[in-house]
Amino acid sequence: MGQAVGLRSLYCGQVSASEIGNSVTLCGWVQRIRDHGEHLSFIDLRDHTGIVQVTTDRITDIKPEYVIRVSGTVAPRPEGTENENLSTGTIEIRDVEIEVLSQAAPIPFALDDRGDVEEITRLRFRYLDIRREKMQRNLRVRAKVNSAIRRSLEDQGFTEVETPMLWTPTPEGAREFLVPSRLQPGSFYVLPQSPQIAKQLLMVGGFDRYYQIARCMRDEDLRADRQFEFTQLDLEASFITQDEIHEFVSSTMREIVSLTRGTEIGDFPKMTWREAMDSYGVDKPDMRFGSKLVDLTDILGSSGIRAFSAECVKGIKAPISEMPSRSKLDALIAKAKSLGAGGLAYFKVIQEGDNLAFESPLAKFLDEKLTAQIIEKLDLVAGDLALIVADKWEKAVEVLGAIRLELGRNGLNHDDLKFVWIVDFPLFEGLDDNGRPISAHHPFTMPHNDDFGLLDSDPLSTRSQSYDLVLNGWELGSGSIRIHRSEIQSKIFEIIGISEEEAHSRFGFLLEAFKYGAPPHGGFAFGIDRIAAIMAGEENIREVIAFPKTQSGQDPMTNAPKPVSQKILDTVGLRTLPKASKPGSN
Amino acid sequence: MGQAVGLRSLYCGQVSASEIGNSVTLCGWVQRIRDHGEHLSFIDLRDHTGIVQVTTDRITDIKPEYVIRVSGTVAPRPEGTENENLSTGTIEIRDVEIEVLSQAAPIPFALDDRGDVEEITRLRFRYLDIRREKMQRNLRVRAKVNSAIRRSLEDQGFTEVETPMLWTPTPEGAREFLVPSRLQPGSFYVLPQSPQIAKQLLMVGGFDRYYQIARCMRDEDLRADRQFEFTQLDLEASFITQDEIHEFVSSTMREIVSLTRGTEIGDFPKMTWREAMDSYGVDKPDMRFGSKLVDLTDILGSSGIRAFSAECVKGIKAPISEMPSRSKLDALIAKAKSLGAGGLAYFKVIQEGDNLAFESPLAKFLDEKLTAQIIEKLDLVAGDLALIVADKWEKAVEVLGAIRLELGRNGLNHDDLKFVWIVDFPLFEGLDDNGRPISAHHPFTMPHNDDFGLLDSDPLSTRSQSYDLVLNGWELGSGSIRIHRSEIQSKIFEIIGISEEEAHSRFGFLLEAFKYGAPPHGGFAFGIDRIAAIMAGEENIREVIAFPKTQSGQDPMTNAPKPVSQKILDTVGLRTLPKASKPGSN
Repeated sequence: MGQAVGLRSLYCGQVSASEIGNSVTLCGWVQRIRDHGEHLSFIDLRDHTGIVQVTTDRITDIKPEYVIRVSGTVAPRPEGTENENLSTGTIEIRDVEIEVLSQAAPIPFALDDRGDVEEITRLRFRYLDIRREKMQRNLRVRAKVNSAIRRSLEDQGFTEVETPMLWTPTPEGAREFLVPSRLQPGSFYVLPQSPQIAKQLLMVGGFDRYYQIARCMRDEDLRADRQFEFTQLDLEASFITQDEIHEFVSSTMREIVSLTRGTEIGDFPKMTWREAMDSYGVDKPDMRFGSKLVDLTDILGSSGIRAFSAECVKGIKAPISEMPSRSKLDALIAKAKSLGAGGLAYFKVIQEGDNLAFESPLAKFLDEKLTAQIIEKLDLVAGDLALIVADKWEKAVEVLGAIRLELGRNGLNHDDLKFVWIVDFPLFEGLDDNGRPISAHHPFTMPHNDDFGLLDSDPLSTRSQSYDLVLNGWELGSGSIRIHRSEIQSKIFEIIGISEEEAHSRFGFLLEAFKYGAPPHGGFAFGIDRIAAIMAGEENIREVIAFPKTQSGQDPMTNAPKPVSQKILDTVGLRTLPKASKPGSN
Repeated sequence: MGQAVGLRSLYCGQVSASEIGNSVTLCGWVQRIRDHGEHLSFIDLRDHTGIVQVTTDRITDIKPEYVIRVSGTVAPRPEGTENENLSTGTIEIRDVEIEVLSQAAPIPFALDDRGDVEEITRLRFRYLDIRREKMQRNLRVRAKVNSAIRRSLEDQGFTEVETPMLWTPTPEGAREFLVPSRLQPGSFYVLPQSPQIAKQLLMVGGFDRYYQIARCMRDEDLRADRQFEFTQLDLEASFITQDEIHEFVSSTMREIVSLTRGTEIGDFPKMTWREAMDSYGVDKPDMRFGSKLVDLTDILGSSGIRAFSAECVKGIKAPISEMPSRSKLDALIAKAKSLGAGGLAYFKVIQEGDNLAFESPLAKFLDEKLTAQIIEKLDLVAGDLALIVADKWEKAVEVLGAIRLELGRNGLNHDDLKFVWIVDFPLFEGLDDNGRPISAHHPFTMPHNDDFGLLDSDPLSTRSQSYDLVLNGWELGSGSIRIHRSEIQSKIFEIIGISEEEAHSRFGFLLEAFKYGAPPHGGFAFGIDRIAAIMAGEENIREVIAFPKTQSGQDPMTNAPKPVSQKILDTVGLRTLPKASKPGSN
């Protein structure tokens, strides 16, 4: 925490029993005043390191949140008054002189109990909110995340390069924040959504291993876990393969966990996208619990039972600690239907004499052999619940995956960190209105080495050299090996229906750069906000952002955004459209 | 530099004589091909670590800047062909297999000789320009500067906090880049010119010691050493004094020098603003050479000599290695006059028998005693040149300071790093049109503790608790202790003529925050671009920026800024003014 210097000799949290008898000078905020009468009062003095008790007989001119400087002697607390919950709980400061450095008006909400304060009020007075122990801790966890990233990547030979904040508009301009130019009125820069193109240019420039903790801005509708501004670790390297990039990032994650949690974690498993979908029904599986999806198609698909007559039949042993109620089961069925499945079959496993049997509306359709096969495949014992969905493969795994997650995520341990790499994502994610494949990642993603032959014949089966890192069901980030040869790039543009002209207009300078000798390269990016929130044990990324915006993009503290005068708009050659006029009506 | 992995076994620059006999695989760009006939050719293969010589008999399909992968055996070069200038100069790679990873079109300028290439071309093809050894080194020096800063400040207990990029407009809006809001058409964010207010709010929030390597944007006319975007180290700390802040920053600078130059430097001297002006005629003195300004007022001011009849007479022993020509002296006099001085008196010191004498048009006005006094005061010997300016104090020191710098800066050693703290700057820098003092720094700067009494009686003599760090004549950065008490802040606003209403409109949320218990605090900021340029031995900051803009704010590579479609402008409720219409004509 550094050494206390200046107006004080120690931080509040540093005053321990070993200081007894010493004179100290402390500075901080008055957390609480307790008047014990008979000229005896206690002041809880707070700084970012902790709270220390000050004993005094004069508190008439001191109120909560005043900033004071206290000089006095460290003494043991009277027997029986120690506070075990406080690192400074065995001592107090006596014989004090108190200097008021700043007064404080009554604060609009208490700082020791967040539960009751609306978030809008916390943001309105964010400078008070961050005095709370929890916000202090959260922001410091975030700083440690950054620090761990830099330390790890620099050790691995990566060099930080700052890429421009004032970037160039793309023709479609979707989600780009505009920045009007004053020197060229009517022209615009945009804020970067990511340094993607800049970092690929650095590879063309021979930079070999680049990283940046990059501020990015995306003008999109906000969700609970999104902000206009976000920070991402962005890296790119040349002459490497996927596996090396995974190891660069995995090492960095291990360093983050080590520095913020103090725990060491091992290697991260890898799983293909196909396997993730097949076993977890989702491309960001939460691996903290089992209940993998099991294929029952060969057992049930051709069993003649109508409910299971489908391309794919998937079952799980439900991740539950006790049998759900009837109404809970009905809710699960409703959920499965709302997700598009025809239904959800459930089978309670009961003991019948020496045998296990199913209790279910569908039990009567299953003969002994089928029952035994299912019990064996799903590894069921008495008291278990089996859940089965039959549908097209995509739908069956999606629905059962969602059911698995809903049942399994209760009571999961936030300290249990289960990382997994998902690899071999499809290159295309479907067809557009013209029947052309749509790039799943971005159009610079390299196809899988084994799948070039599929590009024409079966594009939707083509795998790519792209990968995600997943932690506890969160997609932390993604990356890919990029296309560095123009003949492959042209092929991809042709498949997705980007003409040469359009490619030039959208990516011209990158494509031009690739003409002059581009190395094989690839990279990765992950959001700092999310990983910091997970490491701090927070669900909402706003808890690890010093001055976040609301979900309507406003800052209740500064009142941004605001109108500005026409005089200012004149300098950039703009005027605002009248409120009444509709977009496009001009 | 990290370990070579992936497609190669070593970096080019790592292949040394100790590898002789080993099989290696290298990747990189073809720097040069030399055809020695008889099926013998040399390829210079380049990556960011260096160049290695590859010997082969098949080069027909390889051209400069092709990206290739070379597998072969390390062998000693034939005797007499070693290259002492190269770390790999005693070896070559033989018996090679070469794989072309990417072809390259002929590049628009040579990469081994920057001198002849126009900067606009370099920026247009920046991805090629940064392949040059010098740009690789410069950008890596910059990364080291950042790394040193973070290491030093984190060791000193500073915590990194990211402050918003989308900030709130101020009423005057001078120099602020606007960012239109899409959710609230007609409203704007602005990009931060510095995190000044945010960091003071962090202090109010009890954050104690904050730092950030902050991206800042200022929409101002560009000079050779300015960009719209700049990066600054920004720090702030609570409950400290000036001296502690100086030590935080000095330690950081020592770390920067150590990491980038490999040299250890000592403590930085401190000098008051008054002393700097008096002795060097400038508030950012270049301390690499002497020739301090010496006060001759008591000797010459009342000597009756008309040329010296002024409030202040200042002289220097000129920092020259040989006596300037007559035309050079005339140029100096012209320069002094162009800066507003009445003239510049010069005196060549010559030996006359046992005595020193002056050779000068003015020599006849000086009697023996005056001559001896000047010689003593300026510590002159035969062959020296004395230069004297008489004027008002401000003008005399400014002009002689400029002359000193012009003569002294020739042949200065860039490796000689002379840091100096300038302290006790004036609180105000003059009077505005209404006769009110103008804040020299910003209006939150705390007055000098001894000068509160002067605020009313003699405001222009009031010193402030602000300070600059100067290196070799460059102002690296500045900072101050801030006002944390509202009664002092109100007093300053009153003096500079900011009404309560205006203060509220401009700084409302900061002033409100200060009501709730603000700690004494202060900070500092310095530009990374400048210090990185100095450490890299570059004059122009663009040489340490990966993708800089030109002096007209354009990026010749991406063509930013650009017009955007009205459809995009509709989303933010804006239209561009017709080109013909003049600002304000609406």
